[in-house]
Amino acid sequence: MSNSSRIAVDAMGGDKGLAVMLAGVARARRRFPDMQFILVGDETAIRDGLLSHPNLTAHSEIVHAPEVVGSSDKPGQALRRAKTTSMGIAIDMVKQGRAAAAVSSGNTGALMAMAKLSLRMIPGIDRPALAALLPTLGNNDVVVLDLGANTECDARNLVQFAVMGAAYARTTLDLASPRVALLNIGSEDQKGTDEIRDAARDLKAATHLPMTFSGFVEGDQLSHGDVDVIVCDGFSGNIALKTAEGTARFVADLLKRAFRSSIRSKIGFLISRPATELLRHHLDPNNHNGAVFLGLNGLVVKSHGGANEVGVATAIAAAAKMVRDDLTRRIAEDLGNFEAKAA
Amino acid sequence: MSNSSRIAVDAMGGDKGLAVMLAGVARARRRFPDMQFILVGDETAIRDGLLSHPNLTAHSEIVHAPEVVGSSDKPGQALRRAKTTSMGIAIDMVKQGRAAAAVSSGNTGALMAMAKLSLRMIPGIDRPALAALLPTLGNNDVVVLDLGANTECDARNLVQFAVMGAAYARTTLDLASPRVALLNIGSEDQKGTDEIRDAARDLKAATHLPMTFSGFVEGDQLSHGDVDVIVCDGFSGNIALKTAEGTARFVADLLKRAFRSSIRSKIGFLISRPATELLRHHLDPNNHNGAVFLGLNGLVVKSHGGANEVGVATAIAAAAKMVRDDLTRRIAEDLGNFEAKAA
Repeated sequence: MSNSSRIAVDAMGGDKGLAVMLAGVARARRRFPDMQFILVGDETAIRDGLLSHPNLTAHSEIVHAPEVVGSSDKPGQALRRAKTTSMGIAIDMVKQGRAAAAVSSGNTGALMAMAKLSLRMIPGIDRPALAALLPTLGNNDVVVLDLGANTECDARNLVQFAVMGAAYARTTLDLASPRVALLNIGSEDQKGTDEIRDAARDLKAATHLPMTFSGFVEGDQLSHGDVDVIVCDGFSGNIALKTAEGTARFVADLLKRAFRSSIRSKIGFLISRPATELLRHHLDPNNHNGAVFLGLNGLVVKSHGGANEVGVATAIAAAAKMVRDDLTRRIAEDLGNFEAKAA
Repeated sequence: MSNSSRIAVDAMGGDKGLAVMLAGVARARRRFPDMQFILVGDETAIRDGLLSHPNLTAHSEIVHAPEVVGSSDKPGQALRRAKTTSMGIAIDMVKQGRAAAAVSSGNTGALMAMAKLSLRMIPGIDRPALAALLPTLGNNDVVVLDLGANTECDARNLVQFAVMGAAYARTTLDLASPRVALLNIGSEDQKGTDEIRDAARDLKAATHLPMTFSGFVEGDQLSHGDVDVIVCDGFSGNIALKTAEGTARFVADLLKRAFRSSIRSKIGFLISRPATELLRHHLDPNNHNGAVFLGLNGLVVKSHGGANEVGVATAIAAAAKMVRDDLTRRIAEDLGNFEAKAA
């Protein structure tokens, strides 16, 4: 079993329990038959759970972890139990080189703190940022970061997120000079906080970087597809991401009610069902699961705490693709390249 | 003409120009035939514009303003021109008692600064907050504030917003003890910034207030309808509001594409059209336009800068309803009542 195709999974994290995590891993394995897994958690419970997934059993190793990070544990508390929790041990598998990536549906703050302490940062980066690809009306997805790892950020953090987000867009979306924007509450220069205005000034001046700074975008431009990377602090990013998810669900629910409102609309719905099914699939957050911590010396993927089997499989598949693309090395090289030029 | 049924309109504010503002006012007047208007702006241009709206002419007075607040003017710049701009003069009509409310589609920061300086705050309130009613899946709309007037807020501001939002919900939604929540990036006690955690502690302790504190909600709960008031700083609120608007439009666009994807789905669409039209109407932000500055001694309504004729009419209608409900007096009385009890 090559370590470079092995993914460590925190089998105990997430709101929906071990069974959903295992079912998600089994589902992802069917899409990536070369992938091998290290399942970290309560050994007996995992062994029992694997009885339902004989195919996964043959491609997995179990590593026992006596403890679990709780969803309300503070990062500091979690750090003290890094060596005994399923989350901490999954990250350690990456550090030891036994796995190419770690995936967890657990507590974001704890995951970031543990990953940062264990894997350390790429030179020149102070804090990791949680980045995800979100769907747009354009040709490409958009990279949005930070999505909740850093509640408060200064201008320097925001600039580094822009640099990392651009590297992610170059390697993943295959763009030579990604268009990078800061999320703000208006497009005019004087809008927003001091941190955002200072970051804009610094990004405007950083003409040596392989990116195009596009200024500010507002919340309603997230899905326009006219920029490739949107940078924000983790608080705003989390609010935006969850508001987008909630609104998509809200509209889908209203649509369902509208279609049910008369016999005529029910008939119309049945006829156009294949089209609306496709839309439903496209909007389900479980089909966009798997955010990555950028800036670390190693791949750590955060799966949504409430992800179902499909969601977990999507996050594992995202991790598998990042492993295949050798994302960490390529981002570090990309960052190194322009730093050498700037020096 | 009774001053209590007169609305002052900043006819020059907004991205779409005077013609759209006048068309919006004319449209609103047809719904509220008792309403009278003071149109503030360039007298010649307004007179010309009114040629297309003879009915409105009969119910309007023009007050000349030589200047206009620009969309990128800083609040300080705007304040110095309060007496010569259409925005400043419209607010002054309320201060002088010549109008019961002012409506503007102009620059939010300037509008708040001018309104605050001219009308002053209700006793016990430090800053006005921009509040709007947003649609939910529940029985009632939800009051969300602040939506962009205060970029950064401390715990004391957030608590005051909660108190004002609850008063708005009691008077407008007719609820005895509105459920009030703080917008955050998780539901656990330790989540978010110091400001939010401190505000939560103070609201939990404030059991004498006629509201029920429901803790934290996340962005995906905005439209759930399980709380009546959602409180946040203006930065997060603006991001959430615009993300919700943008996502609703995004989903509507995807839906349009889905329906156009095959002959079969086109037929289904045509059959269920009345239902989807209703949904389109429900989701159009122009049908939810008109946010009010709470906390002022006078009614000032902010219309979306990009509002079309329908949007302007919705904002004017919202102002007309607030005038009819005597919102300012009722909120001040409501705040006074519990302060008397607390003392």
